[in-house]
Amino acid sequence: MSSLGISGFAHLFGVLAIILLLVWLLHYREGIDFDSDNGFRVFNVHPLMMFTGFIFLVGEAAMAFETVPGLRQTKKFVHMTLHLTAIILGIVGLCAVFKFHDMAHIVNVYSLHSWIGIGTFCLFGLQWLFGFVTFMIPGPSAPTRTRMLHRAFGKALLFMAVCAAETGLMEKSSFLNLKPHQREYHLINFTGLAILLFGVFVDFSINFRNFA
Amino acid sequence: MSSLGISGFAHLFGVLAIILLLVWLLHYREGIDFDSDNGFRVFNVHPLMMFTGFIFLVGEAAMAFETVPGLRQTKKFVHMTLHLTAIILGIVGLCAVFKFHDMAHIVNVYSLHSWIGIGTFCLFGLQWLFGFVTFMIPGPSAPTRTRMLHRAFGKALLFMAVCAAETGLMEKSSFLNLKPHQREYHLINFTGLAILLFGVFVDFSINFRNFA
Repeated sequence: MSSLGISGFAHLFGVLAIILLLVWLLHYREGIDFDSDNGFRVFNVHPLMMFTGFIFLVGEAAMAFETVPGLRQTKKFVHMTLHLTAIILGIVGLCAVFKFHDMAHIVNVYSLHSWIGIGTFCLFGLQWLFGFVTFMIPGPSAPTRTRMLHRAFGKALLFMAVCAAETGLMEKSSFLNLKPHQREYHLINFTGLAILLFGVFVDFSINFRNFA
Repeated sequence: MSSLGISGFAHLFGVLAIILLLVWLLHYREGIDFDSDNGFRVFNVHPLMMFTGFIFLVGEAAMAFETVPGLRQTKKFVHMTLHLTAIILGIVGLCAVFKFHDMAHIVNVYSLHSWIGIGTFCLFGLQWLFGFVTFMIPGPSAPTRTRMLHRAFGKALLFMAVCAAETGLMEKSSFLNLKPHQREYHLINFTGLAILLFGVFVDFSINFRNFA
């Protein structure tokens, strides 16, 4: 199977996760509204932005070198812009959860989910800056070792971001105190699996580029 | 930094995670005993075996080609044997959680953690069988593409196993209803971070082998 075929699976699981997430937040939960007086509607911006805005765009950015047609310079530009958009939308998602915590008088950043999430997000910011300075500012081409390091760190950060998403879904389903047989529980689990498979296929797509 | 230096970090975080896990289970929790009448002591076999027995050994097996001296045949044998041991200890860990669920009349395999965990474990069994048939049975050497597929699947499975561990720690810390400022919560979080970094450095160690 070609690298492009593998990235097709990544798109598929990514879009599936977005659909499942929307069904969950709009049908089973309270809906999504950053400016609501209902804290839960504010909170729901968080999972939507952290996956749809952040992880999905980061994954698409990682695959841009396979999926975007045209010159290498165009691919690089799409890769950089998608990552920047992801970071901006990720900040909106983080603001939403801090706003919810303020509204509900909940302590910030104490759970494993939040530690992994905040840590990963800060490292993503550094990785973006490193990438911008090294690859986007005109000058002599970066050595292969630097490219390889950038790619390895990027893959590790995507992996950590998926871990943050999975622990987040796990934490939320525990807070909701759902019963094992409830449909909503299954929906959350399938969303988690779709996110996991998105991460796995993005990684495959990048790995197989070297061999396709 | 050489590939061997990177695997040093993996060992470090792996051993750190084992120590933190033991402090948690023996000091903060009820202790560890598969044959106890106390269901929680039985349950505690599960996290210990799934990380120390399974994930840690799988990671060490993945790095065996760098870390074990000697002939390629010796490295392959260590790689295969460590994986087999990991699967056997993993089965003990799975039996422990099923026994605990029976004792406490809890439904099996309903949470995101259990879905990811069971799925990953079954795929690991298939991957071991595939690896054994393809690489250990004497015959013509497997093509590069097959080796590369085996490695990519192995890395994806390690990533999924780490996700299972993180969601497991998240689920348990929610069940325990710990307060944000409690030391035990921080201990669990640091254990989760050590496991995550173990996974990241094992992956780095394998990736950098090609370039070191």
